[in-house]
Amino acid sequence: MAQAEITAEQALALGRDVYFGHGKIEILPKVVVHELRDIAVAFTPGVGHVVRRLAECPEELCQQTAKDNLIALVTDGTAVLGYGAVGPRAGMPVMEGKAVMFKMLAGVDCMPLCLDARDPDHLVDIITALEPSFGGFNLEDVAAPGCFEVMRRLDGNLPVPILHDDQYGTATVITAAMLNALRVTGRDPAAVRVVVNGIGAAGSAAVAMLEALGVGDIVAVDRQGALHRGGDYPHAHWREIAARTNRDRVTGGLADAMRGADIFIGLSVGGLVDQAMVRSMAKEPIVFALANPDPEILPTDAVAAGGAVVASGRFDYPNHCNNVLAFPALMRGALDSRTRKVSRGMCLAAAQAIAGAVPDSALSPHNILPSPLLDELYPSVAEATAQAAVAEGLARRVPEPGAVAANTRKLRGLVGRRQQELEGILPPSAM
Amino acid sequence: MAQAEITAEQALALGRDVYFGHGKIEILPKVVVHELRDIAVAFTPGVGHVVRRLAECPEELCQQTAKDNLIALVTDGTAVLGYGAVGPRAGMPVMEGKAVMFKMLAGVDCMPLCLDARDPDHLVDIITALEPSFGGFNLEDVAAPGCFEVMRRLDGNLPVPILHDDQYGTATVITAAMLNALRVTGRDPAAVRVVVNGIGAAGSAAVAMLEALGVGDIVAVDRQGALHRGGDYPHAHWREIAARTNRDRVTGGLADAMRGADIFIGLSVGGLVDQAMVRSMAKEPIVFALANPDPEILPTDAVAAGGAVVASGRFDYPNHCNNVLAFPALMRGALDSRTRKVSRGMCLAAAQAIAGAVPDSALSPHNILPSPLLDELYPSVAEATAQAAVAEGLARRVPEPGAVAANTRKLRGLVGRRQQELEGILPPSAM
Repeated sequence: MAQAEITAEQALALGRDVYFGHGKIEILPKVVVHELRDIAVAFTPGVGHVVRRLAECPEELCQQTAKDNLIALVTDGTAVLGYGAVGPRAGMPVMEGKAVMFKMLAGVDCMPLCLDARDPDHLVDIITALEPSFGGFNLEDVAAPGCFEVMRRLDGNLPVPILHDDQYGTATVITAAMLNALRVTGRDPAAVRVVVNGIGAAGSAAVAMLEALGVGDIVAVDRQGALHRGGDYPHAHWREIAARTNRDRVTGGLADAMRGADIFIGLSVGGLVDQAMVRSMAKEPIVFALANPDPEILPTDAVAAGGAVVASGRFDYPNHCNNVLAFPALMRGALDSRTRKVSRGMCLAAAQAIAGAVPDSALSPHNILPSPLLDELYPSVAEATAQAAVAEGLARRVPEPGAVAANTRKLRGLVGRRQQELEGILPPSAM
Repeated sequence: MAQAEITAEQALALGRDVYFGHGKIEILPKVVVHELRDIAVAFTPGVGHVVRRLAECPEELCQQTAKDNLIALVTDGTAVLGYGAVGPRAGMPVMEGKAVMFKMLAGVDCMPLCLDARDPDHLVDIITALEPSFGGFNLEDVAAPGCFEVMRRLDGNLPVPILHDDQYGTATVITAAMLNALRVTGRDPAAVRVVVNGIGAAGSAAVAMLEALGVGDIVAVDRQGALHRGGDYPHAHWREIAARTNRDRVTGGLADAMRGADIFIGLSVGGLVDQAMVRSMAKEPIVFALANPDPEILPTDAVAAGGAVVASGRFDYPNHCNNVLAFPALMRGALDSRTRKVSRGMCLAAAQAIAGAVPDSALSPHNILPSPLLDELYPSVAEATAQAAVAEGLARRVPEPGAVAANTRKLRGLVGRRQQELEGILPPSAM
């Protein structure tokens, strides 16, 4: 049932072999230049007129520049995938790959910026200074707790939205997967107990999303065991979660927390869960072993131990839980409704739209998430995100119903055409 | 003889009407994605292999990412064209137009970054932090003397080259124009007296280039008149130039300095020069009235007063002196030879190549500069720039003779194809 793994050779060849220079992205003109006069319009002296206009009418900025569809994908390289603090240079390939996804899946122009930043203060300072150029930011692969500090200071304070992928993207996809796992096993969110293991950026956000969804009981677990009221914890976000969750005040380690639980969500490290722990869960347990690159328990082992719905971060197993299902459309919806932030309500709406993209006829324990290549996925998720922004009063531009989906379709279609053209240029070795 | 001016309506329509979103640039994948497996190679988990490789072999960064062909075009909006400190937002159209030129003319991927920076310190700090993502920087439209401070601290200290357009680009094109003006009037650089009016960033750099070229006598003029030894000046760069130039210790204002001079180069403000001042110059005077958007004297007036060779920054007159002739190839040459800086020697080599691109058969008082649309211009200028880097021992990668020209041709060709494709997509209204 598993697809073949991606080898290092395949991945490295893609960067190296690209026909027109290295890497995966390029910055191209959207204007056509044939003659001197075209240069004069597109560059000097033409741009002088535009500068003068913007100096007089600053509100026309988004009508005259790429800002309203251009985001920066920012990292300091302190928590790159599962590899840790490899630094901003080694973090670049993730950023370029993600920039490709933003454009291809939702038509968002995305510039990777890998910053040699000293600390969260420095990141905040640089992002604030960069804001004039961008319609939004995506914070990526920044270690906790620094990422919380950055988000606390920027989210809602910048004039443009900032998405922290671990907090928003991952939590949105987990919520979507959980909605469909509950749907396929016939459970009600209010009646289930969920164990979340690994309370970093993604784990904290997942807990908050589950609370917003009305999940009956949540037990958050980290290196000090099940977080509970009365515990003594070094991190503010652990203390806050301990105060709000764990209805029955479960104590002890992960194995204790998992006993009798309906759902396990792992955002920790590989190999922490064994088959006995899965067997100790409630009937028809749901196991999301999302640690990267090695899951808390291999999907095949979890199924063998009775897991009714099993998901992982692995591409080569069913129910691949990847934030690529969420981030392009979350940003598309935020840009098209011109919000200052991406709210939890927008993420919940996106999660529901992602879950809803799997029709009853296709839904099964092995298929709880849609394919990122499903044509209507991003248009519908972007539309739902933008409409939630409108409903919450966050939209500074109110799109007509259907307009965000239509724009997503149009922009995706244009990228699709450019991909066909690219294919006509690339030599066979690079494909 | 003049072309029609570019109207505000034409310039504004270009930004607004672009079919796929506003502005003039987009960020596109260079990889093709058809199926889930392609996403897995180009994004996760594929990029994990590349991250691991870069963490072990940092020297492979430029083989695996877009860095070696990607530059940031940075401004703080303190001196945008002739409009002054309009700020980073209103400065954006210039940056986007220039990014189009970098890609179209020399195949360089260029990201405009308009920074809300507090001061030169802040600019230095941000550019330093951004360095991991970029193969080079172009500092643009930053006011003097702040720009000098930024360049003094970064130029040669960053691991990648930083080009200050006023200092490098403009000075290179002025030098090229002067070489051909001397050629067409049969003069020897060592025998001429040049007056440079307006000693900001571009003016100081022009003075230094003329010195390097062996110009006989240079008189630099600014608000305090002709700079001369013994004068008392508020700026360090004025004091340095006063100490090195003005052989005959000319004093007084611009009119005094111009009397008997062979060449006038204006980088100041419109209308400072009248016909009597041109008439007071040496026989067959050369007049470069480069203030933007209004020249120190209108080209037609300068010709009527006896100007033998007249150039301006105006697109709609002959001898349009625009740094677009220099910056794309200067950067191409620096990237392809992987220098840490763009040296004066590289600029001089570029100036000679630009001048040499006008063959004797085409050279005339009305045609001292090549067209930016001349096919072989950028390949030959980039080649000359890179070879100068090699000769000076600045190249960290030594290209085979002809290789930089060949790469420039290839990348330009690919952009040309993408332009044709774009044309197939754009609706007629946007063209």
